[in-house]
This record gives sequence, C-alpha cells and structure tokens, in this order.
Amino acid sequence: MPVNYLTPAADQLLPVPGVRLGTAEAEIRKKSRRDLTLIALDAGCSVAGVFTQNRFCAAPVQLCRSHLAGGKEIRALVINTGIANAGTGEPGRQTAQATCDAVGAALGIAAEQVLPFSTGVILEALPVDRIKAGLPAAQADLKADNWHAAAHAIMTTDTVAKAASRTVAVNGKKVAISGMSKGAGMIRPNMATMLGFLATDAGIAQPLLDALVKEAADLSFNCITVDGDTSTNDSFVMIASGQSGISFAAETDAGWAEVKAAIIAVSVELAQAIVRDGEGATKFITVAVQGGKDADECRKVGYAIGHSPLVKTAFFASDPNLGRILAAIGYAGIADLDVDGVRVWLDDVLVAENGGRAAAYREEDGARVMAQAEITVCVDLGRGNAAASVYTCDFSYDYVKINADYRS
Amino acid sequence: MPVNYLTPAADQLLPVPGVRLGTAEAEIRKKSRRDLTLIALDAGCSVAGVFTQNRFCAAPVQLCRSHLAGGKEIRALVINTGIANAGTGEPGRQTAQATCDAVGAALGIAAEQVLPFSTGVILEALPVDRIKAGLPAAQADLKADNWHAAAHAIMTTDTVAKAASRTVAVNGKKVAISGMSKGAGMIRPNMATMLGFLATDAGIAQPLLDALVKEAADLSFNCITVDGDTSTNDSFVMIASGQSGISFAAETDAGWAEVKAAIIAVSVELAQAIVRDGEGATKFITVAVQGGKDADECRKVGYAIGHSPLVKTAFFASDPNLGRILAAIGYAGIADLDVDGVRVWLDDVLVAENGGRAAAYREEDGARVMAQAEITVCVDLGRGNAAASVYTCDFSYDYVKINADYRS
Repeated sequence: MPVNYLTPAADQLLPVPGVRLGTAEAEIRKKSRRDLTLIALDAGCSVAGVFTQNRFCAAPVQLCRSHLAGGKEIRALVINTGIANAGTGEPGRQTAQATCDAVGAALGIAAEQVLPFSTGVILEALPVDRIKAGLPAAQADLKADNWHAAAHAIMTTDTVAKAASRTVAVNGKKVAISGMSKGAGMIRPNMATMLGFLATDAGIAQPLLDALVKEAADLSFNCITVDGDTSTNDSFVMIASGQSGISFAAETDAGWAEVKAAIIAVSVELAQAIVRDGEGATKFITVAVQGGKDADECRKVGYAIGHSPLVKTAFFASDPNLGRILAAIGYAGIADLDVDGVRVWLDDVLVAENGGRAAAYREEDGARVMAQAEITVCVDLGRGNAAASVYTCDFSYDYVKINADYRS
Repeated sequence: MPVNYLTPAADQLLPVPGVRLGTAEAEIRKKSRRDLTLIALDAGCSVAGVFTQNRFCAAPVQLCRSHLAGGKEIRALVINTGIANAGTGEPGRQTAQATCDAVGAALGIAAEQVLPFSTGVILEALPVDRIKAGLPAAQADLKADNWHAAAHAIMTTDTVAKAASRTVAVNGKKVAISGMSKGAGMIRPNMATMLGFLATDAGIAQPLLDALVKEAADLSFNCITVDGDTSTNDSFVMIASGQSGISFAAETDAGWAEVKAAIIAVSVELAQAIVRDGEGATKFITVAVQGGKDADECRKVGYAIGHSPLVKTAFFASDPNLGRILAAIGYAGIADLDVDGVRVWLDDVLVAENGGRAAAYREEDGARVMAQAEITVCVDLGRGNAAASVYTCDFSYDYVKINADYRS
C-alpha cells in the first residue's frame, strides 16, 4: 500500500499531441501481462535524458547515451519489463542493439533513432525474439490517449502505476504535460530500476531541454531515496513535440517560467510517487534543509538523514529520536559545520538548537508529529542561503521481509 | 548472540605494567551495575588517540582532543557508561571539565592530564555528582589485573564484553598487549558509541605511537560497519607504558615489526568483535577488495557493499544475490571503473567476471557459501595492486526490531 498515492484515472492523463504509446503482452518473463511498451514520436520532437551513474550500467542505457549523443532525431522509445539486460556483458549490448534494429524496421526509421529501456531481473539474457514477436501488437495499439496503460505496462514490482498530467495556458493556447514513472526502491533488487518519462506538446529548443531535464532530475528523481542503492538502469527522458504551437528557445521567453515550473512539478510528483510506493514504506518523509552555503551541502545533510537506517527505523516506530537525526547531520560531511548554529524542526515543532535539545521542546509534541503518515524534517544549517530537499520513506519490518524473501 | 565471539576469561587478559584499572557502581543511569571505569597510568606512558569525525562530537571528545594536543603527560582515563554527554552544548562541556577536575583532585594530577570518555544516552545531562561520588570506589579498585571487569563496565547495550590480549617476545623479554572495546552499531542509537582502548608495556616514542594509532584504526575500527552511522563519541586510544624494558623509537628498530603487527592484530580483533555483536547480526562478513589503484578506492567498494541494505538483507536470507553486489560495486564512486575487468568471489566460488555472471557459476555453490555464519566476499577490481578490507554483518528483522523498539 503506497503512502497517500492513487494512480490517476485514465481520463485524467492527457494526450500529448505528437506522442503515441502502445503496449503489448510479449511474455518476456511472465504470461498474461502487458510488458512491452512502444512510444512513437512524430518528426520534430526534441528529446533529452539523464541516466544512472552506476558503472555497471545496463546495455540499453549505454545505447540511449550513444543515440542521444549521435544527433539523429529520436523517433521512438521501446521499454520492456521483466528483464533488465544489466550485468550481461557484450551479449547484452547485442540484444539491446537487436531491439533497436527491430523497432527501426517496424517503424521505418534508423536504429539510431530508437531509445531502448529495460527493467526487471539483472544478470538474465533479454529474449529479443519475444520482443520482436510482440512489436506488431504494440505498434497496432499506438495512440496518444494511452498513458494509463503504458504506466501499468512499465511496472515491475511496483504496487501501483505512477503517472501525472498538467496543463499550462500560454498566450491563450494550452500546453499539455504528461509523464509516468516506475520503481519502488532506488534499485528494486533483481527487479531493478527507476524509469521516468515525461512529454509535452510545447516546443523546447534542444539546449533548453538538455538543461531542463538535468534541473528537473536534480529537483525530483535525484532527491529521492528508499535505500540508498543506485540502480544499473535508472533513466529519465523528456520529450517536447511542439505540436501545441507554443515553442520556447530561451529562458527569457514569455510563458517559459510557467511551463518549466509545471514540468518540474510533474517530475517531482512522479518521483515522490516512487517513494510513496517504496518497499515496506508506511510514511512519506520530506527532509527540507535550508541555511546552507550551497545546495550541495544541503543535499548531503538531506541524504545523511534520508539514508540513515537508524533515523528510518525511528520513523517507522513513530519515535522522535532526536539524537539519531543530530548524529546524521553531524556526519554528513560538512567539515566546518558549527553545530551550535543548527536548528531542527519536526513539522512546526522546534526540537533542537544550540547544539542540543531545544529548551521548550516537549517529547509529546515530537511524538504527535512522528505519528503522522507525512512528516517534514526541516534543518536550518544557519550558515547561508541555499536549500535542498530530499524525499524518503521509513524503514520497516516489511523492507527486510521484501528484500530477504525476494528471490525465494 | 554474537557471531562466533566469546569474551576471553579474566586470566586470559594480561596485566600491562604501568596501567591500572578500577571500576565502580556510580548509578549514572541504572542501579546495580558497574558503570564507571578509571584507568591510572604511571608516569612515563605515551598516549595517542583518534576520535569521531562527527561534527556533533560529544563534549568529552572535545576535551580529549584538547588535552592530547596540550602536551602535558596523560596520567588517567575516566569512562562512564549510561549517558553520552553528546548533544548537550555548553553545559555538557562544563560537566566534562568537572569530571576531569574531580579525577585530577583524586589522583593528585592536573585536570589536563585526564582523558574523559562517555557513552550512553544522547541529549541527556551527565550527572557529574554521581561520578564524583563513585570515584573513590573506582580508585580503591585500581589494579593491573582488571581488564575483564573494565571491559564489562564500559558496555552499554553490547551483549558481550569485548577484550583481547597478546604477547610478543623481543630480545628475550616479553611485551604484553591488552585491549578492550565496546559498541554494537557504529552508533548505538541513543546508547551511542564505539570505544576502544589498548595498552602495551612496550615503550613507544610519541611520533611512532601517533602514527601507529592512526594506522591501526584504519585497519580495524575504521573498517567496520553495522549500519553506516557514525557516532558522536567514537574514540580509540593507545597507551604505551614502557615498563617491559623494551622501547621503540623508529620503524626500523629490531622487534618493532612484530610488536606493531601484534598491536594491529589486537585492534582488528577488538573491532571485529563489535561487528560480531552488531545489532541483530546473524552473520559476519569480510569484504576483501583487491586490484585497486589505491586503498581508498578499495575501501569505497568495500563500504558500498558493506553498507547496502539490499546486500545485507540478501546475506540475512542466505541468498547469493549477485545483482545486488555488482550494483553496489558499480555505484561505489570509481568513475572510470571498467566493469568487464571486475571479478567477484563468494569464499572460493568465482561468481562474476566479464561484466556479468561467471560462466561456470552454479547457484547451488553460491547458496552453499551464503548459508555459512562467516563469509568472505572477495572483489578484484583488476586495475592495480592496492587492497583493503571492510567487516560487516547482515541486516535482519532484529535490526529493525532493536532500533524501532529501542526507546519504548
């Protein structure tokens, strides 16, 4: 059960003109489930992506990077669930290439115009013949009004499909933004990976889109942690079709600020949905760090708190265990941090200042906040004006159960 | 129940001439337990220490650093359990100072010649009057043959006392080494802290001892992880009394290599005992990384594996989940790692090479190793000659239980 998250209904997910999605049952690992998704892009779309930093990055990630860098117009994305095609060495690269070849042949485009994505079991070979066999059905299913089905088809062990839409009015015209994501741990053990896809019918010049996908990732998918493990396949791709008639070439263009804010908001919603569906999660926690010299040190503190098993088990127990939070701030890696200047709140309750417990703090106030399903830990480092947030969940018996029992 | 660890019997722990220990019941947090330890050093001892990097470092740690840097001969150590005197701000510094003042008055030495250590609950005030009241009994109890009692008196929620001794013959004389440690998580939630103390009757010149304590810590206490959290109070102190009549002033002195090796071996034994007694531990795991360009990158890989909740739950489940280990290697932070050159063994079973599963690997061989209580994961990075080891334990239901229930 995710924490305060419901998949939007199909009619709440807006079609993005220029972007069509189709799904099929390809029996990649299991029968009777849609496990193959094809996304076809009209000519004229700009596309940008960010990918895992894991050195054991999967074969499809290597091809995505190469095809985006190659400069040919991207015209299709193909996503399979069931097998991650990671830890598969040179044979894995060949099956990822064969997948692109097959999609290219089906759509009459070059293989270099296809971005491939895989998620599922690591170390197993991808059955490329089943993908080829499933492609005609996915192609026949292509339509713009298909985000709901696609969000379901990219799931692995997610307990809910994750998707979001938003519109922005610009110069009397309407810009649509839709996206979907999957993942329930930063790495979902053998069933690995976080994937995120977002499309808009605004036109966005390539340099602007390249910058936006990085900025949006830094504010969304790069701010979440379930267990601190980074997957081999993590990918986040943004598509701008331009078919709304509204286009942006520079940060200063009228309406860009609003569209950019909406795109970032959808990214954050998709990223947070992954944490809400985190393995064994019973609580959703925002760690908001402010007063830092730069965003990087704020993020370090956020992750130190968000990764600490001691802090996360305390959240599970609804225990306002301040010592664990202070210790995590202390070891976050800010060498010259003056701890006497640090203040910490649980929601609106000031819990620590002057190097220790706040004088007015009462344990029952902390306990009241910790009992909630949604909690904000706010940390003021008291040394600057930068801020950053990290989103995480608690650490429960079920986390151990899910991960200890996963393969059995 | 610790993994394969028994406290040595009292007569197996050797007295170190020049070093006397005494314990007392001071009722610092609980009645009817020995919670105050005094260590008195004869004149002529050299002393060196390494301390937590946590910015929320405890008041006694601040005084230890200051007294060691002050250059006056250290003549006493005082250790209390029950209250950590961490996260206590300026009042905490005053109580740590008052503790040193009291010990100095009792022993007729200056307060600056005393090193104070506290372990226990964070954020609570240290009852310095109870320490003062307990000191006479601890002083009356001072004797060289008292390591066993002291190892018990410094425990917090450790399930066993941790101590070790060794002798080395040098020029027909015998050098004695004894030590003790405490801790069951890198931070034991509110009952915080790893403490380690080691004494020898060899004489060791201060520069040599300063270097040795760092080197020994890097090979022992800095190689262990239970949950990746760094305590506010972690301390490791080494004492050399010189009363064996054997003294060392330079790395090249005859017999130094053997004494140094024995001191490091005792340090490693004391550090490993903490992991064997780790919260909820059912297995003891050595992550041995070799073939790195430098020890630092080997340690990064060791900690990535040793910290990963996914890897640690797999050990708990006796599941040879290679994907999790490979993913941890991949995100350890070696930017130019060629994963195709990495090899991984579980004990003597080659499980991964060429970027994926080893061709000859059979799941039942991996499962056989994973069922053991002691496991070595060996990683060869294939890019140099450096090596480093990290010691860790598995991640069980009991870890969550202990840490979620701790304060209730």
